[in-house]
Amino acid sequence: MPISPIEWAKGKVRIIDQTKLPTRLKYIECEDVCGLGEAIKTLRIRGAPALGIAAGFGVVLGAKRAKSKNFPSFKKEVDKVFKEIASTRPTARNLFWALERMKKTLEKNKKEGVERLKELLLEEALKIQEEEREVCRLLSREGAKLLTDGDRVLTHCNAGALATGGYGTALGMIYEAVKEGKRIEVYSCETRPLLQGARLTTWELKEEGIPVTLICDNMAGWVMKEGKVKKVLVGADRVARNGDTANKIGTFSLAVLAREMDIPFYVACPTSTIDLSLFSGEEIPVEKRNEEEIFKVRGKRIAPRGILAYNPAFDVTPSQYITGIITEKGVIFPPYQKNIPQIMESQK
Amino acid sequence: MPISPIEWAKGKVRIIDQTKLPTRLKYIECEDVCGLGEAIKTLRIRGAPALGIAAGFGVVLGAKRAKSKNFPSFKKEVDKVFKEIASTRPTARNLFWALERMKKTLEKNKKEGVERLKELLLEEALKIQEEEREVCRLLSREGAKLLTDGDRVLTHCNAGALATGGYGTALGMIYEAVKEGKRIEVYSCETRPLLQGARLTTWELKEEGIPVTLICDNMAGWVMKEGKVKKVLVGADRVARNGDTANKIGTFSLAVLAREMDIPFYVACPTSTIDLSLFSGEEIPVEKRNEEEIFKVRGKRIAPRGILAYNPAFDVTPSQYITGIITEKGVIFPPYQKNIPQIMESQK
Repeated sequence: MPISPIEWAKGKVRIIDQTKLPTRLKYIECEDVCGLGEAIKTLRIRGAPALGIAAGFGVVLGAKRAKSKNFPSFKKEVDKVFKEIASTRPTARNLFWALERMKKTLEKNKKEGVERLKELLLEEALKIQEEEREVCRLLSREGAKLLTDGDRVLTHCNAGALATGGYGTALGMIYEAVKEGKRIEVYSCETRPLLQGARLTTWELKEEGIPVTLICDNMAGWVMKEGKVKKVLVGADRVARNGDTANKIGTFSLAVLAREMDIPFYVACPTSTIDLSLFSGEEIPVEKRNEEEIFKVRGKRIAPRGILAYNPAFDVTPSQYITGIITEKGVIFPPYQKNIPQIMESQK
Repeated sequence: MPISPIEWAKGKVRIIDQTKLPTRLKYIECEDVCGLGEAIKTLRIRGAPALGIAAGFGVVLGAKRAKSKNFPSFKKEVDKVFKEIASTRPTARNLFWALERMKKTLEKNKKEGVERLKELLLEEALKIQEEEREVCRLLSREGAKLLTDGDRVLTHCNAGALATGGYGTALGMIYEAVKEGKRIEVYSCETRPLLQGARLTTWELKEEGIPVTLICDNMAGWVMKEGKVKKVLVGADRVARNGDTANKIGTFSLAVLAREMDIPFYVACPTSTIDLSLFSGEEIPVEKRNEEEIFKVRGKRIAPRGILAYNPAFDVTPSQYITGIITEKGVIFPPYQKNIPQIMESQK
C-alpha cells in the first residue's frame, strides 16, 4: 500500500518531509499556517493534489487559532489565512481549488456559530482529502487500461503517492496495472533541480517492488530513440480549458520528443487540476524559483560564482502534444476544447 | 586569451584536472601512459579535440619508456601503447585520428634509429597540437560569421578551450564573435551527469567576460519556447560520413527541440572529428559509463540504493536535425552525404 504524505493528526498536520527523502523518512508536524506555508514553499510537501489537501488543512489550522466570536470578524481572520496559503505556490491549480471549496463552506454556513464553523471547515478539509484519494484510485483504474503487460514507461518528477493523497496519478496508474498482473518497467527522469524523480519516484517504486531505472533528464530523448520507452506518463499542476498543461519543468521537452518518436504522451490528473477559467496555457502562471536551487545539488555547489541562472519550476505543454488526459471521469482525448468542458460538466 | 588544458612540459604531459573545476584550477603532470590513460578515463582531460592531442602525447610518453634498440621490438612496445590509449574512450574520433597519425609517423620513419624515432614522434605530437589549435581558430572564424550582434546562444556540455587545444569549437565561435565586437549571451545547459556545462562552460565564459546563464538540462526546451534562444551551438565527438553526429548525451534532444521551434542547430568541430569510414551514426560506438555517475553529484548521493541507472555518455543526432557543420574548411550544409566527402578532400 503506497504511503500517505499528509494526515490530520490531533489538531496538527503531519507530513512527510520530502526534502529528506530518500535518505530519511522523516515526519514533521505543522501546528500553524506559518509552519505549513513554509513546508509548502520549501517543497517538504509538493505535488498538485497533495497541495490541495494541504491547503484545506492549512485553512483549518488558521481557523482554529482565530479568536473572533462572530462571523464577520472570523471571516476576516480566515481570509488572511486564505491569502497566506494562496501566496505559497502559484501554479498548482488544486491548491486554489481547495481554497475555493473551503471558502464556499464558510459562506454556506455563515449562520453557524464560530466553533461550529471550525468543525465544518475541518469536515470539509477531511472530505477533500478523502475524495482526492478516491479520485486518484478511480483515475488510476482508468489509466491502467491504457497500459499493457511488458510496457516500459517513462515518467518525470513525482506523480505518485507522495504527490497526492496517497496513491498517485501517473504512478497510480502503474500501481494499478501491476496489481492487475501486468509487468511494467519504469524509466524515471531525475528531474533537476530538486531531483523529485531521483529521490521520490525511484524510492516509491522501489518500495512497491516495481523495476525502476534512473536516468538524467537529458537522456530521455536518447532513451526514447533507442526504443526503450513505450509510453510517457506525467502528472499535472494545472490544465487549461484547451488541454494545455503546466507540469514540472522538462515536461514540455518530453512531450515534443515523444511526438517526434511516435510515443504516446499521457497526462494524469484529477479534474480538480483542470482550470476551466483559463482558455489556454498562456494564462497559467509559471513559478520562478531561486537560482540557488540550480547552483547547488543537495547542498553542494556545482557552478562558479558570478554567473546567472534561470529557474522556471514548471513549463506548459501545448495540448497538441498530449495524447490523452487521464482523469477520474475517464480519459479525455482531443479535441480538448470541446471534450474537457464536456467531461467537467458530466456527473460520472 | 582562453586557457590551454594540455601542454608538453619537459618530458611530461601537464594538464588541467578538469574534475576539480570550477572550485580549483589544479594542474597535474602525467609521467606515463598509465597516468594519462587514467586522466582520460576519469575525464580530467576531455573533449574530442583535446583527446586527440592527449593521444599524441600519450604515444610519446609510452615510446619514451621503451627499452628496445631496434625497430621491430620498438614497434611492438609502441603498439601496446597505441592499444592502451585506444581503450580509454571509444567515441571521440580525434583520439583514434591522432593515433593513426602517430602510427603513420612510425611506419614512415622505420629506417631511423629508435632514439630518432622518439624525437620524430614528439615532433608529430606537437604538430598535432599546433595544427589543432590553428584549426580551432579557423573554424571559430568561419563560425563567427553565423553569429550576429545580440545573439542569444544555447550550448551543451563544454566545447571551449578546455575541450580543445585552447580555443574551442562552439565556444571558440563565440569568443571570435565577441572579439569582432558582437554582443553574445549564452545559455549553458548544466550537462548531467558530470556537469561540464555547469562547471566548465560557465567558468570559461565568465573568465572571458561573456554573460552566461546556467540552466538545468530539462529547461532547454522551455527556454527555446519562451523565445530566449536564437541559435544552438554544440561540439562533436564523432561525425559520420552522412553528417550524423555523436556528442554529449542530451545533444539529440536539443536538436529535436530546436527543429520543432525553428531554431538553427549547428555542430562545430575540426575535420579531424569527421570519420569518413562510417556511413552513418548507427556505426558510432556510444560509450556507456558507470551508473555511479548518475547516483552521485559531486560525491553526494541523490538516489536510493537498490535501483538501476542507465548512463550513455553520448547520443547520436541524425543529420536531418543539423543546420550546418562548422569546420576549419568552412561550414558544411546539407546534403551532407555529398558535401562532407567533398570538403574533406578539398585542400583549403
